[in-house]
Amino acid sequence: MNDTPSHPLVLFMPSGKRGRFPVGTSVLDAARQLGVYVESVCGGRATCGRCQVFVQEGHFAKHGISSAQDHLSPFGPKEERYDRVRGLPEGRRLSCSTQILGDLVIDVPQDTVVNAQVVRKAADERVFERNPAVRMCYVEVEEPDMHKPLGDLDRLLEALKRDWQFERLDIDVHLLPKVQKILRQREWKVTAAVHHDRAADSARVIALYPGLKNEAYGIACDIGSTTIAMHLSSLLSGRTVASAGTSNPQIRFGEDLMSRVSYVMMNPDGREAMTAAVRDALNGLIDKVCEQGGVSRTDILDSVFVGNPIMHHLFLGIDPTELGGAPFALAVSGAVELKSSDIGLPMNEGTRTYVLPCIAGHVGADAAAATLSEGPHRQDEMMLLVDIGTNAEIVLGNAARVVAASSPTGPAFEGAEISAGQRAAPGAIERVRIDPVSLEPRFRIIGVEQWSDEPGFAEAATATGITGICGSAIIEVVAEMFLAGIISEDGVIDGALAARSHRILQNGRTFSYLLHDGEPRITVTQNDIRAIQLAKAALYAGVKLLMDKQGVDHVDRIGLAGAFGTFIDPKYAMVLGLIPDCDLEKVKAVGNAAGTGARMCLLNRDYRREIEDTVRRIEKIETALEPKFQEHFVAAMALPNKVDHFPQLSRVVTLPERKQSADATADGGARRRRRSRESGGAVPEV
Amino acid sequence: MNDTPSHPLVLFMPSGKRGRFPVGTSVLDAARQLGVYVESVCGGRATCGRCQVFVQEGHFAKHGISSAQDHLSPFGPKEERYDRVRGLPEGRRLSCSTQILGDLVIDVPQDTVVNAQVVRKAADERVFERNPAVRMCYVEVEEPDMHKPLGDLDRLLEALKRDWQFERLDIDVHLLPKVQKILRQREWKVTAAVHHDRAADSARVIALYPGLKNEAYGIACDIGSTTIAMHLSSLLSGRTVASAGTSNPQIRFGEDLMSRVSYVMMNPDGREAMTAAVRDALNGLIDKVCEQGGVSRTDILDSVFVGNPIMHHLFLGIDPTELGGAPFALAVSGAVELKSSDIGLPMNEGTRTYVLPCIAGHVGADAAAATLSEGPHRQDEMMLLVDIGTNAEIVLGNAARVVAASSPTGPAFEGAEISAGQRAAPGAIERVRIDPVSLEPRFRIIGVEQWSDEPGFAEAATATGITGICGSAIIEVVAEMFLAGIISEDGVIDGALAARSHRILQNGRTFSYLLHDGEPRITVTQNDIRAIQLAKAALYAGVKLLMDKQGVDHVDRIGLAGAFGTFIDPKYAMVLGLIPDCDLEKVKAVGNAAGTGARMCLLNRDYRREIEDTVRRIEKIETALEPKFQEHFVAAMALPNKVDHFPQLSRVVTLPERKQSADATADGGARRRRRSRESGGAVPEV
Repeated sequence: MNDTPSHPLVLFMPSGKRGRFPVGTSVLDAARQLGVYVESVCGGRATCGRCQVFVQEGHFAKHGISSAQDHLSPFGPKEERYDRVRGLPEGRRLSCSTQILGDLVIDVPQDTVVNAQVVRKAADERVFERNPAVRMCYVEVEEPDMHKPLGDLDRLLEALKRDWQFERLDIDVHLLPKVQKILRQREWKVTAAVHHDRAADSARVIALYPGLKNEAYGIACDIGSTTIAMHLSSLLSGRTVASAGTSNPQIRFGEDLMSRVSYVMMNPDGREAMTAAVRDALNGLIDKVCEQGGVSRTDILDSVFVGNPIMHHLFLGIDPTELGGAPFALAVSGAVELKSSDIGLPMNEGTRTYVLPCIAGHVGADAAAATLSEGPHRQDEMMLLVDIGTNAEIVLGNAARVVAASSPTGPAFEGAEISAGQRAAPGAIERVRIDPVSLEPRFRIIGVEQWSDEPGFAEAATATGITGICGSAIIEVVAEMFLAGIISEDGVIDGALAARSHRILQNGRTFSYLLHDGEPRITVTQNDIRAIQLAKAALYAGVKLLMDKQGVDHVDRIGLAGAFGTFIDPKYAMVLGLIPDCDLEKVKAVGNAAGTGARMCLLNRDYRREIEDTVRRIEKIETALEPKFQEHFVAAMALPNKVDHFPQLSRVVTLPERKQSADATADGGARRRRRSRESGGAVPEV
Repeated sequence: MNDTPSHPLVLFMPSGKRGRFPVGTSVLDAARQLGVYVESVCGGRATCGRCQVFVQEGHFAKHGISSAQDHLSPFGPKEERYDRVRGLPEGRRLSCSTQILGDLVIDVPQDTVVNAQVVRKAADERVFERNPAVRMCYVEVEEPDMHKPLGDLDRLLEALKRDWQFERLDIDVHLLPKVQKILRQREWKVTAAVHHDRAADSARVIALYPGLKNEAYGIACDIGSTTIAMHLSSLLSGRTVASAGTSNPQIRFGEDLMSRVSYVMMNPDGREAMTAAVRDALNGLIDKVCEQGGVSRTDILDSVFVGNPIMHHLFLGIDPTELGGAPFALAVSGAVELKSSDIGLPMNEGTRTYVLPCIAGHVGADAAAATLSEGPHRQDEMMLLVDIGTNAEIVLGNAARVVAASSPTGPAFEGAEISAGQRAAPGAIERVRIDPVSLEPRFRIIGVEQWSDEPGFAEAATATGITGICGSAIIEVVAEMFLAGIISEDGVIDGALAARSHRILQNGRTFSYLLHDGEPRITVTQNDIRAIQLAKAALYAGVKLLMDKQGVDHVDRIGLAGAFGTFIDPKYAMVLGLIPDCDLEKVKAVGNAAGTGARMCLLNRDYRREIEDTVRRIEKIETALEPKFQEHFVAAMALPNKVDHFPQLSRVVTLPERKQSADATADGGARRRRRSRESGGAVPEV
């Protein structure tokens, strides 16, 4: 690099990459040389409009750059033509047709709007640097020449190699019979969709269009056991143009994962039926996002899927039986790449599918995607990432080291083992507060704005009724009961309180708490509390094992993934001892982090390599094999924990003094053992 | 390399590769280090028996090697076990289990017989060095481990990479659902069929078998416009275990190539029907060779196809219309690689297909395969390779430079434009001699041993009749008429001879020669001779253009490919001036050279690279664009040629003095022009 004024300094944002270039270098070339991804379909002909950038004006002292509009060459005829025909937004320039004249800070927008494409804003509109595995490449192919009788296809591939710097290039066999016609449709001008995922692999033409084809789409999808969520994104602008979800139709074969594995084991065509069900649902979702986005199904050229190991296997048509018992052998753990049509998802004939790697037999591609999205491996802080379902997938780590495990929490957090538990739906209690003096509760239900002690609540609630307690509120009510002194740190409801509150009800040898005296009557029973204790103890014990492996006694940051993570209040989760002590400011719901990770892999192939490398490096802990799991589990049965302290939580919440009920260790322990056997071994004996 | 006695010298035959190795090196390792291909399925476990070699004993002065049996380690327990269980032929050793103790000449047999496999000897049993694109690789896979939860497939791939030195390895998607079961069937011992064609490409597992799978097959096929020929070979021993042929069912859409292109152009589903017809025939042939060879269709894992450009396109499902007119644009000229199931040839789900590259619009993959087989590009001598059909494909060259062209010979050589012409079948005249004094002919017919003037001929011929003249005999009879002085060098039958022989018949303004006075009466007419002249002139003119390009006035060697080349007598072909002057010893029929080239590519992937490189380097001459073609054509209308001399032929055959008939240039020329128009421009105007 030369330091004279003839080589201005150019800084690209948001990547922060910078370099000096000779005066007259096109901005696109400069970006390419620095490895800054700027989309371009037409290959510098100023026709596709994909390579738009803009100048950040001003003096950037930190970078030593005085950037100004006139440090770019003025509009040339090509750019003027584009502006006239298609319209260039104010301040935008076509980087292919604009030369560097002086120092510049160049912004590469991630949402280049071309041709007034339909854009709908999805919930989670994070912006990523892009570098999709499928690129649209416009070329002008030489006409046939009898003196040089290279085939039409061979000349197409030559042109693509020359103009787009592909070293090795093949073509999908389904295009062979079509190449000649497409080349002749617009006088040897075509746009090839080229799939080039791994640098070492041959790039492949997967679709071919006459003339300039200036759009292509991809889908990213998280196949959950309960819900399937799909996003449709432009591979060229990165924008998510539609999102849709549906319930997983496999539910009719079994609510939770293990019952679906059982279904496969018990029914000769169980695997086939389950695979067909999920693929049907996916095809329906594809139609839905296409309709929403006004996109043709054949314009989808790439797709990324994630799911837990059992969803992952069933989606790929693999029998998940081995995942039903030790050693929980995955058929395949590495990333899977295939043609979508090979797995019954017809879109374009050339559409590709990428499936993220699984971490372990119970820690799936969804956990890998969440890891990619939240990036514990990219930061110095020790981050805990938890996705709570019937199995909690737990990842703990930082840039130096990442460890992962799953913990058999069982379905309590989803309300399944709770007497008044129900799915989140109008009428379900979602927030609870208990007055520590009067022990009177107040609550909110889904579908009603007011709290139950506010005016207008009763009227508003008549529409929905007050029907039960949803998963997030179960955490809250137990935590509030603990904070109000209704239950001991061992989780026993203090029967003595029945004397001063009608809310404490006796049921034989145990007591319960009356949350709502209506129809139905909603109570929290001693068994409910035990179920929550077992579930949270399993989760916490798993987290502790990972902390042991990392040699840390606290975590810096916690991400709670999934729907459950979105709705629970981190404070109450910590009061219960479901998650370890942490600065509450640093405990965040991360939404559908798995879906976000899938979308990252769709829009940038570098993220595929990143998560493949990360998953290879993640150390997997099998909780069932760790002797200390039992010990951690027993300690975690207490609220918030028998041995661990919660100093940061204590700054915000006054935790009750430790008081121990007489029967907790003896009788309560016996009950726990019994429950454990009844639940079929899903939680360990303590 | 070390020169001390501790590093004996080992020479491998037939490759001739040699090197020094430390005492104790296994013969298999030594071969691998030198790049000598020795098959091995079990990976050195002494169970597959594929790596057999034997010692050539004696003193090899030329190499400075005294080779003896006891320069190999004695039988060890592994080899003894193999010999006991499977039987090792006398003198054979398992190279994996045998160590080098002293200097050796090691022979790697190309026909290792294992397990008494059925072997039938095919006509053309050339032996090639092998290095197939599909290899059978036995591995023992680690069992699943909860502490290292890598997927079953991932551990399989790891084992394959480790034991078989694959750098990058993928698996066909159809195997994903099967991997777990297959791995468990024989306690984690499996044989993977790995396709690895190009060094730079990822290798791929295309089939997977429990335990040791010690056999795999491939087919090589030449799709001719008239006949399809297929060979079934063991990929492990290299032996051809079955061969079969069938007529191309596309004949019902059109006898010659151009009429098939017309059919496609005129009929909406013409291409589909023609593609289906050839694929049906191929599937029938596959069944046939499998039955013959006692081989299961699913054991065929690789396949290689060649054909002329129109057969090549129709086989691949590509519309050949562009090949029907200038600029004769091939859809694809490079080699094509795909899965056989993608083109309607189901064998094993993973079976691969390789199609050789085409040289030009009229010089196909069959010509490329013939080139590979005969190797003009591998020798110093200037070799002419001719495959005669309705289009003659011509290749001329040596190691320095190869040029190629096609010439529109028309169907005369196939007997189609000859009044008494017929296909080669019992009763057809196949050999002719004419007494230059009496002008009396004698001939042989297909199906009868005797010549027509020998005792017993008449009786023998009653069974078949004497029905017509087949292609090869047309050459002979015209040449003999020329040698007997019946026709002039301009091809005109000398009417004056009618005075001294009843064999010369007058038909209006022209004469004919009575070859057989029976039922039917078989004559050679002036028109027949003109048709042969036009055809041979077209061929010779093409050859001359190539000789011009090469700057040579003679060729060193001539290979005549295909059925026509097998049956014509090179001497008569030269007398006619169909091929240039050459030492007759060096003019050879090369049989189905295209089929042989296909087989080479099946058994050794290096040949694929060789022919791809060669085709890229071959210079293509489009005869229609060359101004000198006309001139060469006119000169070549004469017998043997107006301007070229045949000194080497003259040493063997006394060519007639040049005598010119009065009407040859004027009247004969007019007739030629008329015929040319009638035949639709297939031959140029002269």
